[in-house]
Amino acid sequence: MKKVLLLTTGGTIASTAGTDGLSPEIMPPALQNAIGELRRHYDIDCRSILNLDSSNIQAEEWQLIARNVYDALPDYDGVVITHGTDTMAYTASMLTFMLQNLKKPVVLTGSQLPISSPLSDAQGNLAVAFAAVNQGVPGVSIAFDHKIISGCRAVKVRAMGFDAFESVNSPDRGEVLANGLHLYRKKLPDNDQPCRLKDQICNDVFLLKLIPGTNPKIFDMLLQMDYRGIVLEAFGAGGLHFIRRDLTEKLRRMVDNGVAVVVCSQCLYDTSDFSIYEVGRKILEAGVIPAGDMTTEAVVTKLMWTLGQTSDMQKIRTAFATNYAGEITLSTL
Amino acid sequence: MKKVLLLTTGGTIASTAGTDGLSPEIMPPALQNAIGELRRHYDIDCRSILNLDSSNIQAEEWQLIARNVYDALPDYDGVVITHGTDTMAYTASMLTFMLQNLKKPVVLTGSQLPISSPLSDAQGNLAVAFAAVNQGVPGVSIAFDHKIISGCRAVKVRAMGFDAFESVNSPDRGEVLANGLHLYRKKLPDNDQPCRLKDQICNDVFLLKLIPGTNPKIFDMLLQMDYRGIVLEAFGAGGLHFIRRDLTEKLRRMVDNGVAVVVCSQCLYDTSDFSIYEVGRKILEAGVIPAGDMTTEAVVTKLMWTLGQTSDMQKIRTAFATNYAGEITLSTL
Repeated sequence: MKKVLLLTTGGTIASTAGTDGLSPEIMPPALQNAIGELRRHYDIDCRSILNLDSSNIQAEEWQLIARNVYDALPDYDGVVITHGTDTMAYTASMLTFMLQNLKKPVVLTGSQLPISSPLSDAQGNLAVAFAAVNQGVPGVSIAFDHKIISGCRAVKVRAMGFDAFESVNSPDRGEVLANGLHLYRKKLPDNDQPCRLKDQICNDVFLLKLIPGTNPKIFDMLLQMDYRGIVLEAFGAGGLHFIRRDLTEKLRRMVDNGVAVVVCSQCLYDTSDFSIYEVGRKILEAGVIPAGDMTTEAVVTKLMWTLGQTSDMQKIRTAFATNYAGEITLSTL
Repeated sequence: MKKVLLLTTGGTIASTAGTDGLSPEIMPPALQNAIGELRRHYDIDCRSILNLDSSNIQAEEWQLIARNVYDALPDYDGVVITHGTDTMAYTASMLTFMLQNLKKPVVLTGSQLPISSPLSDAQGNLAVAFAAVNQGVPGVSIAFDHKIISGCRAVKVRAMGFDAFESVNSPDRGEVLANGLHLYRKKLPDNDQPCRLKDQICNDVFLLKLIPGTNPKIFDMLLQMDYRGIVLEAFGAGGLHFIRRDLTEKLRRMVDNGVAVVVCSQCLYDTSDFSIYEVGRKILEAGVIPAGDMTTEAVVTKLMWTLGQTSDMQKIRTAFATNYAGEITLSTL
């Protein structure tokens, strides 16, 4: 029987209806019952470390979760983390970077409806998460809607549907069908280093999603606000405007001022490629860092994490040209 | 034989490879040839009004395009607009609002590969666009990859794939199969008013896509920059953080300062619903405007357009509770 640590952090899965809407509670009876059922198959220890709507999960919570996981790893076969869905993809990406060389399974799950609801998806999602630990799926994953997804490739694409998460630009790692659990991609990048906790991150990162006519002055403001990193969601494969409202000069200025500027696409699927069009080439020459086929969630968390490790721009560039845990297809750079 | 005006604006479809990457030219020979072929079925006038990578299409270009379409409407059965794909969904949404009560077909199209490429999707996309005009599909649409999509529901979801656009939270209006063109949703909201050009818009709109830990001070900066409208892409169905970094008080302050704040979801699919969780209810009470199931592209352009028509906050609220052309499902509010 596998020994599994269940860390609860709140989220819809643990929420109950109050007069002001849903809010999480530490251990609702239905969650206790579900854990009771799972104990027939797994040796489970349970620890409530947070009790938050995941919209409130931020840098400090990521560190708390990562430290709890890291400290528990020697004593368990794997860890399941219940978490709200809203920021689960960000948390999963960040844990991927914080827990370097992680080999044991760390699986996030949650639900679109509270576990106390008769229509809840919670029991099913918990079952898949524990099965992923049981099968030793390495590294950080999300288990949701009968699927197992790489943590650093997950995006919440649906606000309401039970198939809330997709694995973007990367196949699912596994799925449950009528004939059981199938694993498709068990391997992470080769690495025989021991797991290390690297939980220093920098919160001074801004995400700018372009719209037509974005006022370039925003970059002056961001400089004033002392941001150390900017993630730019450009149009399509890598477009941004430069007539009348020239964003390229401002990006150059950010880079010249020592800000790490990483560019990706606001399209959900496929890779960005800033080398196709003239304007993209110009900003690459100015020193912006391309994100290839990474999700925005992975780009943002990787930048926060990298800036927590170093302020050497060359090392930051190297980190973005490194595939730590499957978050990037290096050939897309 | 239907009389069709073709307006060209540049984009990949009209691009050729130079030493610095792709850039558009006014009328490449392959586009002339394609129009020649289409002239066997349609009476086509052709006018080049712009020659831009669509990342450079902004407020001024939208007005130019809208005026050209509006002036031509009495003389044509419909208009086809070739346009780069990067901002096509924004342009299609904006034209939807600028051309109020539009009954004739206005169809945007383009391609992922230049028309001069042997692998190009341009000819096929042009054919569907002209077929949509031929069938009288009313209002603004995008024709792409054998599909016809409402202009105000389109999102560019793929940076590379030929199926670049999806109709989000609304069925396709039509598709081409081996047995011809099928139309699924021909009707727009009932309206017997004549078409009117309302092309005044306000560019002082900022899109803020939240990330965990977004620094609330950004709102003070946005106030200083005199933005009249803010679109907030919240987490999931409508989450935003309020512990340590309280965004709710800042949103209240924006509203109190007369800024129109519209909230939507950063999830691609499904509706936002700020009434489910406590924090969402709080900001609705503070006066933020919910966007229901609109796309971000539609929210941004509708806010720019609405602020161009009025600065009366009550009228802005009314506009966002109005379904002009299928851009919102009112029951999601």
